[in-house]
This record gives sequence, C-alpha cells and structure tokens, in this order.
Amino acid sequence: MLTLHHLEYSQSFRILWLLEELGLPYELKKYDRDKKTMLAPEDYKAVSPLGTAPVITDGPVTLAETNAIVEYLLDKAEQDGGKKSPLRPVMGDPSYVKYLFWFHASQGSMMPLLLIEMLFGIMAKRAPFIMRAMVDKLAEKLGETFTGPRLKKLLAAAEADLASTKWFAGDTLSAADIVMSYCMESAKAKGHIDATRPHCQRWLDQMHASPGFQTAKEKDGRPGMVPVM
Amino acid sequence: MLTLHHLEYSQSFRILWLLEELGLPYELKKYDRDKKTMLAPEDYKAVSPLGTAPVITDGPVTLAETNAIVEYLLDKAEQDGGKKSPLRPVMGDPSYVKYLFWFHASQGSMMPLLLIEMLFGIMAKRAPFIMRAMVDKLAEKLGETFTGPRLKKLLAAAEADLASTKWFAGDTLSAADIVMSYCMESAKAKGHIDATRPHCQRWLDQMHASPGFQTAKEKDGRPGMVPVM
Repeated sequence: MLTLHHLEYSQSFRILWLLEELGLPYELKKYDRDKKTMLAPEDYKAVSPLGTAPVITDGPVTLAETNAIVEYLLDKAEQDGGKKSPLRPVMGDPSYVKYLFWFHASQGSMMPLLLIEMLFGIMAKRAPFIMRAMVDKLAEKLGETFTGPRLKKLLAAAEADLASTKWFAGDTLSAADIVMSYCMESAKAKGHIDATRPHCQRWLDQMHASPGFQTAKEKDGRPGMVPVM
Repeated sequence: MLTLHHLEYSQSFRILWLLEELGLPYELKKYDRDKKTMLAPEDYKAVSPLGTAPVITDGPVTLAETNAIVEYLLDKAEQDGGKKSPLRPVMGDPSYVKYLFWFHASQGSMMPLLLIEMLFGIMAKRAPFIMRAMVDKLAEKLGETFTGPRLKKLLAAAEADLASTKWFAGDTLSAADIVMSYCMESAKAKGHIDATRPHCQRWLDQMHASPGFQTAKEKDGRPGMVPVM
C-alpha cells in the first residue's frame, strides 16, 4: 500500500496535495514535530532514510526527495490510468517549457535561496549579543550580493508569468504549481510577496481556494503549510 | 539551432556532457568569466534570463535550470530518435527508483548543501579581522547542526549505492550520473570524498575516463569542472 509519511509543517504537504489531485489510493501517516526542538520524531526518522521530509513507501520502495516523489506518483497514476496526466505537460504542449522551468526551479533555485536566507537569519540570532549587529550586517551584505538579487529575479519572473497565465504552466493546474506551493508560501511568510506582486498573491489565493488543496489541508489539519518562525 | 551557452567553470559543463552522450546536433558558445570578479560577462547575462548557468536556446525557446534542460534534451533526443533514452530509466526498470532519487537529490539536496557550506566560508573570510574567529565558529556550529550531518548522510548513501552498482542508477550511465557530476566534483574539492569513500572516488575516476566526458572536457578546454577557490 502506498503510504505518505507526513511530517507536519514540512515540504511533504505538497505530496499530500498531489495525491488528492491524482486520486490515487494511499494511506496517510502523520507525524508531529517535537514541540521544543521542532525536529522530526524518532519513528519518522526510522522510516526516512536521510531524515528528510517528504518520504513515501510503496511495497518494497522507500523514496525521499520532493520532485522524485512527484515524478514517481505521476508515473504511477499514468500507469494505472493508462493515459498521460494533465498535471505533467509533455513536449509539444504549449505549457511544456514553462512547466519544466518552474517544476525544476522550485527545488533547484527557489527553495535553496529561501533556505540560505533563513540560515543567515538563524546565524545572526545565535551570535553572542555584542556581535549580533556585526553578524547581522555580514549576513545582510551576503544577502544583498547573493540571495537577494537571485530571489528578486526569480519572483519577478514568477510575477511576469502569472500575469499572462492563471497557473505557472498555463491556464490549468500542473505539478509545477504543486511543487511551487511551499516556496511561494515561504516567500510570502518572509515578506517577499507584497502589493508589488499582485499576480503572485492572486496565485496564492486561488491555490488556497482550489478543491484539491482544501481537501489536503483538511487531512493535514494544520492552520498553514509552513511553520511560523 | 540548439545552442548551449556555456559559461566556463559552471554547472553548464553537465549539459555539454549530456549533449555529447545524446549525440544531438548543437552549437557551443563559450563565455569566459571576468578574471577579477569571476562573474559572468554581459553578453552571457543578456542571453540568460536570470543570469544563471546553464542556459540553452532552441529556436524560440530559452531555458534555464539544469534539470529542466536535462529533461528537455532527453525529450528532444527521444522524439528525434523515436525511442526511449537509456539515460533515463522508466517505471518498471530496476534502476528507476535510484535514478529518480539521485537525479532529483542532486539539485534538490546536494547542490544547496554545498552552496550553503561555500557561503559560510565566504562569510567568515569577509568578516573584519578581529571578528573572523568568532564568525568562523558560528559558521562551524551551524554547519555542524545543519549542513554537515545532511551532507554526511547523503554521501554515505552515495557510497552505499556505488558499492553495489557501477553508476548511480545501476550498471550503465544515466542522466543521474551526469547531474551528480558537478556535485561530486564540488564535494571532492571540499575534502568530502577521501579514503573513507572509495566507491565515490572510483565513480569519479570512471567518470573522468568515460568517452563522452572526455569529449566534453576537450570542447570545454578547462582543466576541471569546478572553479578552484
């Protein structure tokens, strides 16, 4: 039986949403984080080979890494259904190139940039009090030269694409939207999506209103996708 | 005409290698980094929408993001050749699950961890002299709690997999090896692949000796894939 080992407030929400969209039969096993450390519990670590989220099991298969799991589930659904999934446009489809870009930019660019930004923040907080201002400044400088401009360009590209189509890869939902959901929620939580990015905000709103997302959210049972830090 | 805009010492070496493996006709346009700043030149930035490497153009298509380009080129080669590429195992193939994991773990986990490690190093170097030891310590602590253990687990998984098969997804070369090449070269340059990881080292050696890699290296014309920092 296909099982999603779902760690609360983690990137695995996307897999829950995808499973709802695909209509594949699956078992949902939920795991709470340690309330103090926010780390994954021992029984989760026992099933996740690298301690990361998400992870699925399916008979003899244990698979980690968001986009690997997304491809696996799309392949499984296509094999079961005997036809291509509309969630994954193929070469020749007008939405194919945008799909490829956003599907891979999610994990290959946007998540790393947001993660680096978060780590710089943690670093400044952990510095001894008298050093904090200086570490803050160093982190800010590196942010200005490295993460900031890249993140800005990526969000500007998202804004431009979402100004011309409803979803990231055209006018229907695709797996690119599903993987981008966690990045966009994180970007919103960090203040990167404001009044200057109305199409990114519209995309977030329409995602929250979509039936598959809502069912996933009910099953998840948490107020949001990303932890409040 | 399909064109690889190849920035020296960048992640685009992988695309050059893939093109050689696929035997697709392509034009190679090489770009040198600024000798002082190591930044990409203006004519490269003009063609790369986000200023990142790699980037390809193909008629009206401009595409960035390593794994997006890899999928695009595999699709193109399969369409031209009329059959599935052995470089991308499909569901049902014994190497399929490992392929999916390593293909996506490359950009989704290993590159970000190596990038964070590199940024922490830069941060310590840029700190005012009297603060340097403290910033170094802070970076080291964050490395110990965050990047270090994750990178260790990932490399241990690579070592275990490469102990049982010749390449990352079985006994023949796949696109997972090609995307992992830059990560493994970077890991080696950072001292993460030593005598305790003989199978990772063997994989690096056999990669260097493979004909497609050697042709790509000749066309690249640089002594190595990753910049010496």
